[in-house]
Amino acid sequence: MTYRAEVFVTLKPVVNDPAGLTIKGGLHALGFDSVREVRAGKYLVLTLDADDEDQARSRVEEMTRQLLANAVIEDYRIELKVPSPSGGGQGGGLRT
Amino acid sequence: MTYRAEVFVTLKPVVNDPAGLTIKGGLHALGFDSVREVRAGKYLVLTLDADDEDQARSRVEEMTRQLLANAVIEDYRIELKVPSPSGGGQGGGLRT
Repeated sequence: MTYRAEVFVTLKPVVNDPAGLTIKGGLHALGFDSVREVRAGKYLVLTLDADDEDQARSRVEEMTRQLLANAVIEDYRIELKVPSPSGGGQGGGLRT
Repeated sequence: MTYRAEVFVTLKPVVNDPAGLTIKGGLHALGFDSVREVRAGKYLVLTLDADDEDQARSRVEEMTRQLLANAVIEDYRIELKVPSPSGGGQGGGLRT
């Protein structure tokens, strides 16, 4: 079956985030003074084949550990979208 | 009140995604052949002050349109985390 996984990679809270600071500065320059903090991260959407949900999840975990996130400075979160049991062709058949 | 907003910015499906293709190539090189597609996007977490949920949401919408996303080539989705009515100090009092 084909699964869709969303991987959210964020810098750990103690790590400086120059991109986030730059975006915050830009928002303030545009007049959005109510913004206190911006943290910039990565949002990756993977489409992959797997036999079942557990296999899909463990594969994405392994990919994230090996390549997608740097565990020294980054945290990550994975959300798996499971296809409907009938297996495909039904666009609305995904659940989180 | 202080709100937390998550902004997900993705390239439109018709737009080429060289970063995603590079990540897919890297995953294949590591042996993850089950990966069919990778799309790379941005994940921004904003902390901002607003009087109520509607104001927070409309401010983040406006920020996203003006600076965070390029509407020509990108789609975006906003999720707002609303603090508990008591207003603060309770770390677990957020709902999506």
